[in-house]
Amino acid sequence: MSEAGLRSDAKRNRARILAAARTVFAAHGIDAPMNEIARQAGVGIATVFRRFPTREDLVAAVFADRMTVYAAAIDVALQDPDPWHGFCDYVRTVCSMQAVDRGFTEVLTHSFPTARGLEAERDEAFRLFTELIRRAKKAGGLRTDFVPEDLPMLLMANAGVVAATAASAPETSDRLVAYLLQAFAVTAQGRLPTPPTPQRMYAAMIRAQHTR
Amino acid sequence: MSEAGLRSDAKRNRARILAAARTVFAAHGIDAPMNEIARQAGVGIATVFRRFPTREDLVAAVFADRMTVYAAAIDVALQDPDPWHGFCDYVRTVCSMQAVDRGFTEVLTHSFPTARGLEAERDEAFRLFTELIRRAKKAGGLRTDFVPEDLPMLLMANAGVVAATAASAPETSDRLVAYLLQAFAVTAQGRLPTPPTPQRMYAAMIRAQHTR
Repeated sequence: MSEAGLRSDAKRNRARILAAARTVFAAHGIDAPMNEIARQAGVGIATVFRRFPTREDLVAAVFADRMTVYAAAIDVALQDPDPWHGFCDYVRTVCSMQAVDRGFTEVLTHSFPTARGLEAERDEAFRLFTELIRRAKKAGGLRTDFVPEDLPMLLMANAGVVAATAASAPETSDRLVAYLLQAFAVTAQGRLPTPPTPQRMYAAMIRAQHTR
Repeated sequence: MSEAGLRSDAKRNRARILAAARTVFAAHGIDAPMNEIARQAGVGIATVFRRFPTREDLVAAVFADRMTVYAAAIDVALQDPDPWHGFCDYVRTVCSMQAVDRGFTEVLTHSFPTARGLEAERDEAFRLFTELIRRAKKAGGLRTDFVPEDLPMLLMANAGVVAATAASAPETSDRLVAYLLQAFAVTAQGRLPTPPTPQRMYAAMIRAQHTR
């Protein structure tokens, strides 16, 4: 086979592996067996590892597009003339992305210390999210005791609802998110328990990744 | 060995299996391998199945005490002279029971069609819960568009938070519950999406049990 033929084979295999991984991750999460991905792609397991030496490499490649959409969502929110409206739209967008794809849910709520590209994009989204929080509080929409760690809290809660209801009552996620947005509004009343520190929440995200 | 000796052996084995199952279910959930329970109890797997022919029998025996506490919590709530206060205390109690025991979380949020005794107690708790809802609404504390299906929604959300944060940031669960109670208050503002029907929520609970 010519060198060009080999390259085109490699490309085709890569595309097939990515398509299979997207389906398998969406249904079973990012810890799904690599064997199953190889089987659905119609390639050997050795081919999978030649294209994607680690699971993190495969995860980063599969979710690159979604991370771009996720990153764009915060830009849209920051351009909203009503920062509280932008905040609510942003939270709803992220939660609905979560609702349709179990794999992406895991990418959002867990940490990937080895997938640098993916992490950098997520970190930037988190930095912009804190800016959105600042504006939404200043505009008098978001309660002042809201902390950035309340977003991963909401994503973890939504993940629990999505895991249980995705097949039979997927509308439950919208209702949870609506309740929580009303609780985040400055009009909500009552004191809140002290939130976890950023360090503790980060540790929870790391640990969730390693013990699943 | 005498007949009395045999009976006392059987009793001791039963107690050891229950103690081991309690520990293993708390850490790994109610789908934990029966082999591991037998190993920790120091008995053979055949002995486990002789005492508890199905996994549901073992689950029902392990959680009988907790289901009693759970059932008592609703009686306490119904006796509170302030029904909204009773409602909030009840929700906090159930969620904190959930926070310390992964196995019990699963018992609460999933269905056990084959463990009749356990189910009857849970069903009775649910019936009393709807009575608590009626009173808390009438007293002007609970918003009128709250539905009973919002309780399993909250339990599923709390399960997601507990699963991710139990080891590193267990305080997160209290914060989620406080937010949701404020959202359930009649003072919360805003419309809510239509909730799942009882049938759909029930299907979600059944399905979650069968697909884990």
